Amino acid sequence: MDIIVLKPGTSEEDIRRIIKKLEGRGLKANISTGTERTVIGVIGDTSKIAEEEEDAIRVMPGVEDVMRILKPYKLASRDFKAEDSTFNVRGKVVGGKKIQVIAGPCAVENKTMLMTIAEKVKNAGASFLRGGAFKPRTSPYSFQGLGEEALQYLADAREKTGLPIVTELMDPRDIEVILKYTDIIQIGARNMQNFRLLLEVGTCDKPVVLKRGLSATIKEWLMAAEYIMSKGNQNVILCERGIRTFETATRNTLDLSAVPLLKQRTHLPVIVDPSHGVGKWDLVAPMSKAAVAVGADGLMIEVHTNPEEAMSDGEQSLKPDAFQKLMEELKPIAAAVGRDI
Amino acid sequence: MDIIVLKPGTSEEDIRRIIKKLEGRGLKANISTGTERTVIGVIGDTSKIAEEEEDAIRVMPGVEDVMRILKPYKLASRDFKAEDSTFNVRGKVVGGKKIQVIAGPCAVENKTMLMTIAEKVKNAGASFLRGGAFKPRTSPYSFQGLGEEALQYLADAREKTGLPIVTELMDPRDIEVILKYTDIIQIGARNMQNFRLLLEVGTCDKPVVLKRGLSATIKEWLMAAEYIMSKGNQNVILCERGIRTFETATRNTLDLSAVPLLKQRTHLPVIVDPSHGVGKWDLVAPMSKAAVAVGADGLMIEVHTNPEEAMSDGEQSLKPDAFQKLMEELKPIAAAVGRDI
Amino acid sequence: MDIIVLKPGTSEEDIRRIIKKLEGRGLKANISTGTERTVIGVIGDTSKIAEEEEDAIRVMPGVEDVMRILKPYKLASRDFKAEDSTFNVRGKVVGGKKIQVIAGPCAVENKTMLMTIAEKVKNAGASFLRGGAFKPRTSPYSFQGLGEEALQYLADAREKTGLPIVTELMDPRDIEVILKYTDIIQIGARNMQNFRLLLEVGTCDKPVVLKRGLSATIKEWLMAAEYIMSKGNQNVILCERGIRTFETATRNTLDLSAVPLLKQRTHLPVIVDPSHGVGKWDLVAPMSKAAVAVGADGLMIEVHTNPEEAMSDGEQSLKPDAFQKLMEELKPIAAAVGRDI
Amino acid sequence: MDIIVLKPGTSEEDIRRIIKKLEGRGLKANISTGTERTVIGVIGDTSKIAEEEEDAIRVMPGVEDVMRILKPYKLASRDFKAEDSTFNVRGKVVGGKKIQVIAGPCAVENKTMLMTIAEKVKNAGASFLRGGAFKPRTSPYSFQGLGEEALQYLADAREKTGLPIVTELMDPRDIEVILKYTDIIQIGARNMQNFRLLLEVGTCDKPVVLKRGLSATIKEWLMAAEYIMSKGNQNVILCERGIRTFETATRNTLDLSAVPLLKQRTHLPVIVDPSHGVGKWDLVAPMSKAAVAVGADGLMIEVHTNPEEAMSDGEQSLKPDAFQKLMEELKPIAAAVGRDI
Repeated sequence: MDIIVLKPGTSEEDIRRIIKKLEGRGLKANISTGTERTVIGVIGDTSKIAEEEEDAIRVMPGVEDVMRILKPYKLASRDFKAEDSTFNVRGKVVGGKKIQVIAGPCAVENKTMLMTIAEKVKNAGASFLRGGAFKPRTSPYSFQGLGEEALQYLADAREKTGLPIVTELMDPRDIEVILKYTDIIQIGARNMQNFRLLLEVGTCDKPVVLKRGLSATIKEWLMAAEYIMSKGNQNVILCERGIRTFETATRNTLDLSAVPLLKQRTHLPVIVDPSHGVGKWDLVAPMSKAAVAVGADGLMIEVHTNPEEAMSDGEQSLKPDAFQKLMEELKPIAAAVGRDI
Repeated sequence: MDIIVLKPGTSEEDIRRIIKKLEGRGLKANISTGTERTVIGVIGDTSKIAEEEEDAIRVMPGVEDVMRILKPYKLASRDFKAEDSTFNVRGKVVGGKKIQVIAGPCAVENKTMLMTIAEKVKNAGASFLRGGAFKPRTSPYSFQGLGEEALQYLADAREKTGLPIVTELMDPRDIEVILKYTDIIQIGARNMQNFRLLLEVGTCDKPVVLKRGLSATIKEWLMAAEYIMSKGNQNVILCERGIRTFETATRNTLDLSAVPLLKQRTHLPVIVDPSHGVGKWDLVAPMSKAAVAVGADGLMIEVHTNPEEAMSDGEQSLKPDAFQKLMEELKPIAAAVGRDI
Repeated sequence: MDIIVLKPGTSEEDIRRIIKKLEGRGLKANISTGTERTVIGVIGDTSKIAEEEEDAIRVMPGVEDVMRILKPYKLASRDFKAEDSTFNVRGKVVGGKKIQVIAGPCAVENKTMLMTIAEKVKNAGASFLRGGAFKPRTSPYSFQGLGEEALQYLADAREKTGLPIVTELMDPRDIEVILKYTDIIQIGARNMQNFRLLLEVGTCDKPVVLKRGLSATIKEWLMAAEYIMSKGNQNVILCERGIRTFETATRNTLDLSAVPLLKQRTHLPVIVDPSHGVGKWDLVAPMSKAAVAVGADGLMIEVHTNPEEAMSDGEQSLKPDAFQKLMEELKPIAAAVGRDI
Repeated sequence: MDIIVLKPGTSEEDIRRIIKKLEGRGLKANISTGTERTVIGVIGDTSKIAEEEEDAIRVMPGVEDVMRILKPYKLASRDFKAEDSTFNVRGKVVGGKKIQVIAGPCAVENKTMLMTIAEKVKNAGASFLRGGAFKPRTSPYSFQGLGEEALQYLADAREKTGLPIVTELMDPRDIEVILKYTDIIQIGARNMQNFRLLLEVGTCDKPVVLKRGLSATIKEWLMAAEYIMSKGNQNVILCERGIRTFETATRNTLDLSAVPLLKQRTHLPVIVDPSHGVGKWDLVAPMSKAAVAVGADGLMIEVHTNPEEAMSDGEQSLKPDAFQKLMEELKPIAAAVGRDI
């Protein structure tokens, strides 16, 4: 349902034009005359009124404002599906009682380092292995990833450790090669509103980690999930990874309140990436604890054996020992909120 | 130490003028000529160069940029004082192992409600009682607080429960009446850069809770603490209460990464106010848990017996039962991070 | 009028409680049942429902959201007063066809510099002289202004040049001394929500320049004007001076769209301060031109004879020659938008 | 050149490790010992130190901070090319004395509307025709554009009016079909950091309008231009279209100070899109005037014959009459800043 607020002194004719427009879309108008404003309540299935039609009504003579009452997303909403969604990925359940930890290097740099890290994070208790094959970098002169070679190393590491793989898709032309190797497709923050890419992964049968865009509202983020789900793929995992604010002491501002808020609005699992969220390795442990305490269904953490030589994101990577220590420290917090880790 | 970056092709004469200016302030210049830029390292006690002098150097011919290496705050910094500061307020230690919880209504509305709330939060385990006597409201037509009458009720509640009082100072003209009653002075977010008020509380002998401004960086916040400390009062408690971002689904965005970051940079205690930070009562519990997990030294939580009739901030207040339940749930999390609550 | 949106499946009893609550405030409920949501339109003078009561309704069982249709400010709104407000200050009309330029140093540093600047800006065509006596500085170790001595110099400069004075009030305890000298009272950005200070200047009979807070929305800014006006002083001048955003290449982001937007919503004059807005002297001229083109009623520009020696804001001050050149360049732009300067 | 700031008390051995690391990259270290901090100036071609290596140095023991002195972009910078870049597109010069106006509908809806609008904007003085064939929409249920059919209509309109075409590329798979028709390729705000798309258009021989991302800093925006230029295409036009801030009264906050700032830092042409920047048709005219006054090389304006029926962005579109009136009003402002329009 939408509410159309009229300007004071709007003519009968203008009101009739608005009503006619609504009726043309099969909707009914309920006029309510207040002391200072008249409003029109739109009765009927207003999900039929797309965004652009709301804008169009907004410019009609006599209209002061249009307020939308229903959320613009449907498949992603709790109204549509009340119980939590869970997905099984090679035997690991995402969205269930166990908090799933995805760990690994920012970028796959070579086979040896990946194998070493994979074994170490596995031993520390991680459930999934992450690693970038195609890397979005702000400079064209930075390392852009090893491409398919990295994917092959990830598959080798999966074979050795049993950890399912999460890796990022940046370009619709890479979808086949990514699907050939990965278990979960990651859509990065900068691609959260790359709508063509969203439609593409919407037709895949593998779960998607959808990172929040740097300046995306909760609503826009859920609309991006809706894009994927509208094509059939219901297995979307939302990943909070920090938003851009005026504060520059941290790389981004990790919005942990998004986790319980999303839990109210959607049935989808919600995980947190503290590494990108703060961008400093020595803040990753406290923010991971906070993420577990706030109710996250998982964590995505960057781990590197030698951050001083990392080819990307060294500043925010934990060394394996620090990661293992953190995994231990998370256990009692997970237990305190009724979860396992 | 400051670094002055010169434009390419700066003349010898311009460089001499800059050096002369520095020498006039008792500083020495260390010139370092790189391949593409020449920089001047300023040797000496650059804390003598105030902000305005940096700006003045920045407009000299030949200067491309001035970069400050040292933090502009001193008394508030970890460099100045390595160990954590703790203060004893009527027997309660702030900044120590025990996480202190400050609870109570946004505004003191009448004596009965305050007494009831005070007893209930005391029984639930709170250590301090909060309550507003002078209220900053965005509308001049909203309830502005009971003034000294409220302070008297707070003192009555303290007498009955033993809970020390925290209340907000908004106007330097109220300082005497506030000091007559309160145990801790609160400076609200909107007054974080009310520099005259900061100087005033800097001469008081009671601790100050300094809330972060809605658009204040960590550095500006610590400079506000420095204002207070520069006048003698070293007992400043920093309170994260959310910053303003583009996201409107929550009232503000609670920046929990500020807590561990501040712990690195300052020796002052850091507490968190989730009620204002998110503005929705049903997000207060998860965010309180996250605040404890991340390392906060305390929490400030709004509690009201009847939020439906609250004269301010009803939307974000917990009922006493919910507060008591939360206090129980916080215990294992506090224990997990080596604290008591 | 307010709209109360009910959750799906809200019970009859919950609806009755809401209606009863509204009736207790002399309001009527108009229930409108849509396909997916039921909404209650509140009929009557909802300006009687203060902010806190809306919050209180929001927490009642069955309520999903409360939407306010009317703007919360009244005296400041175009609905209340359709024609532009103009004030006469010592013969200069603010808010009329002539764009008024307020120029001068950030801080009054000494008498000689002020006299020189005053004469130069007068000759270049400025209508008002600005200069700080009490300075808000982010560091307690920076120059804080000369106090009443500076006010005396400003009065001397007014006597010599005929330019009325604009100076900032930071503390309610300074109001008498400020009123003794100034023609227009300035409320700085950091005090835009210093509500006690706003109430104080609301009882004065001199116009007030109200600068926009760094993180203030247009609505909050107009509410701050409403605070002043609610006490009787209708002569408020709104001054856009930049908001805080993620961009750090400029000191703030000057929001010029605020000017035409305010012109729709309020009858009050709107001026622009490009010096603080961008914080770099070499961007002041283009932004001043843009401000005139967008419809500003005035400009506030920092001018200093020797920015390299300025005790504050040297980086953003124009030299007198550059100011004079700018004043010439603004003339054809003012003419193009039907104004004089 | 980079500056490495050391922590107080860093050991000789740690310093030696840092120097060794630098030397390993062919760089030299200039150590400067101050009173409170020691800094290392890195001498040599630090453009060889990529972002990831800076991060890696940042995590070395003893390092407090790494400050970059040189801008990370090269081809896009004024240092690299001092004179303004201009491109000739079918006889229209972008970046020259004439301010180029790109006008047309948000989306191409059908042939008749496009032809009508094209003729009207041509008659009003526009130089280029814009129109979306593939539309990025926040909802998957909104109109997504007509695809190649729209491109054919644009070509028809070009043939009839002589106006070159600007249209958006969203997906690397569409590049061939877009290049077949368009004269200028537009990269939308949401794709400003779609790095694969940037590399792709970097190999094209048609100019690119690169819109600023909603949360992109000036530096990141120039790095996105650098991506395109690094592949050979030097003809990039930067388009300011508003950034995301806390203010919701306008769709975005149009950052006009970006225009003169970019003019200092880059040789590339800079244009402004006030339609998306403010999102309200009645603010487009004043903001267009401001954009011309501030020094923009062009404007991009949405025009629609019937905004009430527009399939997207009706709220922010000018009707042809209003557009024609605006074009007339812009003339004296352009003349005032030494430009034609």
